[in-house]
Amino acid sequence: MSASWKCSDGCSVAASLALVGLGLMGSSLARALRASRAWQGEIIGLDAHPKVLERALELELVDRAGELASLDADITVFCVPVGALREVLATAREGGWPRPGQTATDVGSVKQQVLEDVEAVFGRADWFVPGHPLAGSERGGPDAGRADLFRERLVLLTPPAWVAQEHRQRIAALWGGLGARVEIMPAARHDRLLAYTSHLPHLLAFALVDTLSGRPEGGRIFDYAGTGFRDFTRIARSSPALWRDIFFGNRRELLLSLAELEQRLRRLRAQLEKDAREELEIGLHAVGVRREEKPEGGDAT
Amino acid sequence: MSASWKCSDGCSVAASLALVGLGLMGSSLARALRASRAWQGEIIGLDAHPKVLERALELELVDRAGELASLDADITVFCVPVGALREVLATAREGGWPRPGQTATDVGSVKQQVLEDVEAVFGRADWFVPGHPLAGSERGGPDAGRADLFRERLVLLTPPAWVAQEHRQRIAALWGGLGARVEIMPAARHDRLLAYTSHLPHLLAFALVDTLSGRPEGGRIFDYAGTGFRDFTRIARSSPALWRDIFFGNRRELLLSLAELEQRLRRLRAQLEKDAREELEIGLHAVGVRREEKPEGGDAT
Repeated sequence: MSASWKCSDGCSVAASLALVGLGLMGSSLARALRASRAWQGEIIGLDAHPKVLERALELELVDRAGELASLDADITVFCVPVGALREVLATAREGGWPRPGQTATDVGSVKQQVLEDVEAVFGRADWFVPGHPLAGSERGGPDAGRADLFRERLVLLTPPAWVAQEHRQRIAALWGGLGARVEIMPAARHDRLLAYTSHLPHLLAFALVDTLSGRPEGGRIFDYAGTGFRDFTRIARSSPALWRDIFFGNRRELLLSLAELEQRLRRLRAQLEKDAREELEIGLHAVGVRREEKPEGGDAT
Repeated sequence: MSASWKCSDGCSVAASLALVGLGLMGSSLARALRASRAWQGEIIGLDAHPKVLERALELELVDRAGELASLDADITVFCVPVGALREVLATAREGGWPRPGQTATDVGSVKQQVLEDVEAVFGRADWFVPGHPLAGSERGGPDAGRADLFRERLVLLTPPAWVAQEHRQRIAALWGGLGARVEIMPAARHDRLLAYTSHLPHLLAFALVDTLSGRPEGGRIFDYAGTGFRDFTRIARSSPALWRDIFFGNRRELLLSLAELEQRLRRLRAQLEKDAREELEIGLHAVGVRREEKPEGGDAT
């Protein structure tokens, strides 16, 4: 099979790619690769649910079905819930995977736990490049995927020091070829950032929709919600099992960010209780100003 | 001037309409009236800021400038921040407004306080129909208005028992003519509902963006935010003075809803701390299910 995906300097990235998990992320990756004229390699599909795999074949998202016990592709992308990764990796390893020169990555929303999973199964694997495309949808399944899901989106890669340059480049070229912007950062920094920008907002959205659902108006209360609120409820429709795994996969950082938010809410509560109008307004104003600024701050953490 | 806006049964609604305040709501109302072929009456514009008024005249949103001290229109719509209404009403009253047969309404986000303001200045006015279109934007000013802002949106009217039928119908016909759906409810019920569906979510969005802004990454942290989070930050860009007025104008209900949310967050925190994965997942699942149901619940409150 000829090489079919070129790096910017003409190196070949891969001739075959296995997608383990064909939900939103996996099926979007398949669609994006199909839509990319540069990619002509084989796409092998795997999924724990036979119906999902069947549907992916029906939609011609993948060329053929693969097996975890006989995984064999130049690049394997794990698109499984973060809580399921370790077991999936262990099964693949039993089948002799990977062979020399093969590369793997994932798309999980937490990265320190992924590193732990990889190390627990393979030790310090120099061929596994953990990744996280900052793209998604509250919808799931092979029909929810979109070929443009990753276009102009940020993909964060968090390879530890021992990951080889050739594997890093291969995964960076894969995402770059699909129109994404790639940024490398330590897994610890990723997990801290995402606790604030994604995991805490999701936790809040769940709590807020839960609060509203508890009202005596029942579901009718949502009819009185403004557009801003509808965004929260859209978030709260995301998969419970997926978000349980993410919340617990990044529990320490999430709890830290939650403590900060609770402190802000206590301050707002105190301002409301003591009728501190000016103080509250100054606070609201500062939030808006800081949001507009978007200063080019340094990389902390 | 001939009558120019017809009720469904052919009655005339108004030949002149005064807009007090030409920000997002006032200028959208002006645009919507202009775009409505049924409306051919005069639109009189007022604003505390001369530049805003000037701009509205320049954009031909209003036919001429009015004065609070000599207010004289069939319908007057107060589109001022809720914290400013009482003073505005008092000034209009000093000018001898309203004359018999004239009707007034407002678009404020809290309604019990509006009733108190009206009663403080006019006693039990049978011609003031408090209103709240559930439509908005985080943008403000006369250039932000949109002719379709109220189309297919809900407008809640909260007239107390002493408001005359003719005035209720006039305001309901005004909104109906612009494509909005009108619903009547008590002011207390409005304020409780909106605490949950609008005021609490806004308070949360402010607290969340405040939490993120406090991170050492500064504004760059927003680059790592998913689309769900961007919705929160859009909300947090809303006018601080406007939201201060709304928060304090509905303080009691807002504090009750905040207490409920804080209780939910404490429960989630406890589940995370004690590693109660199944319990947390069941909770997330219940939220999603209840959100989907949208049962036709009874009217509580």
